[in-house]
Amino acid sequence: LGKEGLVIVGGVAAGLAAAMEARRASPEMPIKVFERTGDISYGACGLPYVVAGLIPSLESLILHTPEYFREQHGIEVRTGCEALELLPSKSVVRVRMHVEKREVGYDALILATGAAALCPPLPGHELEGVFVLRHMRDGRRLLRFIEETRPRTCAVVGAGYIGLEMAEAFRARGLRATLVESSETVMSALGGRARDIVAEEMRAHGVEVIFGERVVGFESNAAGRVARVLTGSGRAFEADLVSIGVGVRPEVALARDAGLEIGESGAILTDERQRTSAPGVYAAGDCCEVLHRVSGRRVWHPLGQPAVRQGWVAGANAASSDVSVEARYAGVVGTTVVKVFGLEAARTGLSLEEARSAGFDAAEVESESASRAGYYPGASKIYTRLVTDRTGRLLGAQMVGREGVAQRVDVYAAALHAGMKVEELERLDLAYAPPFAPTIDPIIRAAHAAMKKS
Amino acid sequence: LGKEGLVIVGGVAAGLAAAMEARRASPEMPIKVFERTGDISYGACGLPYVVAGLIPSLESLILHTPEYFREQHGIEVRTGCEALELLPSKSVVRVRMHVEKREVGYDALILATGAAALCPPLPGHELEGVFVLRHMRDGRRLLRFIEETRPRTCAVVGAGYIGLEMAEAFRARGLRATLVESSETVMSALGGRARDIVAEEMRAHGVEVIFGERVVGFESNAAGRVARVLTGSGRAFEADLVSIGVGVRPEVALARDAGLEIGESGAILTDERQRTSAPGVYAAGDCCEVLHRVSGRRVWHPLGQPAVRQGWVAGANAASSDVSVEARYAGVVGTTVVKVFGLEAARTGLSLEEARSAGFDAAEVESESASRAGYYPGASKIYTRLVTDRTGRLLGAQMVGREGVAQRVDVYAAALHAGMKVEELERLDLAYAPPFAPTIDPIIRAAHAAMKKS
Repeated sequence: LGKEGLVIVGGVAAGLAAAMEARRASPEMPIKVFERTGDISYGACGLPYVVAGLIPSLESLILHTPEYFREQHGIEVRTGCEALELLPSKSVVRVRMHVEKREVGYDALILATGAAALCPPLPGHELEGVFVLRHMRDGRRLLRFIEETRPRTCAVVGAGYIGLEMAEAFRARGLRATLVESSETVMSALGGRARDIVAEEMRAHGVEVIFGERVVGFESNAAGRVARVLTGSGRAFEADLVSIGVGVRPEVALARDAGLEIGESGAILTDERQRTSAPGVYAAGDCCEVLHRVSGRRVWHPLGQPAVRQGWVAGANAASSDVSVEARYAGVVGTTVVKVFGLEAARTGLSLEEARSAGFDAAEVESESASRAGYYPGASKIYTRLVTDRTGRLLGAQMVGREGVAQRVDVYAAALHAGMKVEELERLDLAYAPPFAPTIDPIIRAAHAAMKKS
Repeated sequence: LGKEGLVIVGGVAAGLAAAMEARRASPEMPIKVFERTGDISYGACGLPYVVAGLIPSLESLILHTPEYFREQHGIEVRTGCEALELLPSKSVVRVRMHVEKREVGYDALILATGAAALCPPLPGHELEGVFVLRHMRDGRRLLRFIEETRPRTCAVVGAGYIGLEMAEAFRARGLRATLVESSETVMSALGGRARDIVAEEMRAHGVEVIFGERVVGFESNAAGRVARVLTGSGRAFEADLVSIGVGVRPEVALARDAGLEIGESGAILTDERQRTSAPGVYAAGDCCEVLHRVSGRRVWHPLGQPAVRQGWVAGANAASSDVSVEARYAGVVGTTVVKVFGLEAARTGLSLEEARSAGFDAAEVESESASRAGYYPGASKIYTRLVTDRTGRLLGAQMVGREGVAQRVDVYAAALHAGMKVEELERLDLAYAPPFAPTIDPIIRAAHAAMKKS
């Protein structure tokens, strides 16, 4: 690489992982990171737990400061610096730093622009007290609002993982909480019995849960703050605070305007080396598509662990002139987990609907098993749903339980990576001791049930 | 099968799993189970937790009674019935029921004779107060001894998983406890830093732990009960109760006397259908060898989960005249886990020494990682050691931590089944949420460290 070095747009998970990996690959090259907000290097996934009061302050989420990157690694991180325009043909990016605009040349550039929370333009969505939670600044605004207005009631719109975490956070703060989800599922794929277990847990902890109802608007009180949520069926309920978690969209404006190819999912298209369609331009993290290893399709799957690892790949490739060093991102199998009060809810691979729409002749089998030996205190039920094709190949798994779910789902993730059939899963030699599993592990029970059905 | 039906010798895990699976395969065939002790169908792995007082009584460990098997499944279970001699050429087994001896014919027979705890013939080993814990009756004797003599101090000989569990159990009972292990490892394979973490945890909970010292005898008090333990270095320490957990041996006398082939490990040789060298005779559980899928060798690996599954295979094959129904046992990868106070210690596959003695050009890499996001309360360290060959193929894993170990080791078990390399492990898409894992899972960190080393 030449003397312009590497420019990275975005200074959170993928961007800084890329910067660090690039530095490892190239001890001397100039590396600049531009972050348009004032915050870098923080664990965005921790925001709900700060709102809950479980983590003392937003500052606890910060891993490193710009000084750390400059002094320890020679990486220049500039906050409040927005990339306005990317000109791949000239290898230049136009940026605004505070008021000043300028052009910055690069030898290689990595887009790590992330994703933005969706806020549907419903009547009243701009009222004070209506929030989305995505960035550090969102957390700051939300916490300040809670402190200043002392809300007693809240509504959470959307039962994705953010919605589930926020409902729990508000309950921990002592607010009365109502969760409204327009579909009949949670985490966009857990339906049926799994959905019911999650909903029961929410209700047991004082969250009112409403499925199949769409929020159509918000009304204010005399002070101009949000006070009521209106739904499609004509219901209205009180909410001094509204948290909207109905989804996110990739931040692709810079890429699209620069003529970079955008994938069918709406996120930036890359190859497995995280190269975009423009020479010298890479993308990583929530702004770009990934390969789903089960469906074989390129999908948008904005999550922290894949973002960091795409950052590593983009950074290694962008910094290395050695073409034999071909860092590659292997793609995802779609593994997610969320804590819902005392429950662990997880999924990996495809749901039945996703499998069918991806062209598989798929079936699903439910099973229930204990988390520990039956005689060992504290045993609880683990509910599992496996999705398979007609040859018995595992396509997906969903699990809900009070313990032993968050890591057990990783066995299914490994099985999906390896293309295992349920009969192979049934043969696994898994760890057994009375405090941790029944003699026959839930994974083996579930595979056994799926074998009988297929 | 003819009218004699199936005879099973042994009525605990493997024997009854075989009986139930045989019944599923053949609704009508006569099935008889002979158990020489008075106890059947109990969770032997729960015994330490009854001693600890965590489980209220030994009866809590019993799953089913002989009446249940007779009335619900038409399976005749006879306790106090010892198999004296097996005559495969005549398809007859000679048994003693209480005082009466008789011959019982069979069409198929399954040996599920289990294993016996080793009690080295040291001076004083027959003293009152010296115990091995293997069967229900051992538990009964031990509990009665504690109740009647109220011991204040105890010694646990051997730091295998039984020894670790018993030391914890005695501490829970309020006894002062000393653990003496002749080697420098725990669980026969955990050495180095992993061993130290386990030992520190024991000591933090008041167990005195001594490595590299051999117990050479026991001395009694005036009442003729054990009072002191003597070691090879000349030490003597007080112990009103001694629990010996230095290993087990397969119960193969019946098989050997009948001329059945015994494997190099000393346990009964079977094929993957659990057939012994004698036609019509199967074996399952702790009395027989299994294939170790990593070393490719047949080994003795007496544990509950493999025992039950070998029982299933033996039962299905013994009961089915349909040769196309070929139930097969896939073997083990050597997965075990044990709770040591607040720790989870687990291993799977081969240790470095085992890998080298199995002919692998093996190396090992240690790593440490957090169990949760760094900012999430309750995060603790997970220590991992991976053993690989020179191509990066995973050969084994050892893990110790306060949480997230017992199920995470199963990901390594699945990887061993699939023959994965560490670079494939490093690519796994694993579940992440702040309460359950750091952004980059300990499994990925460990694989990353192993990749750099290999």
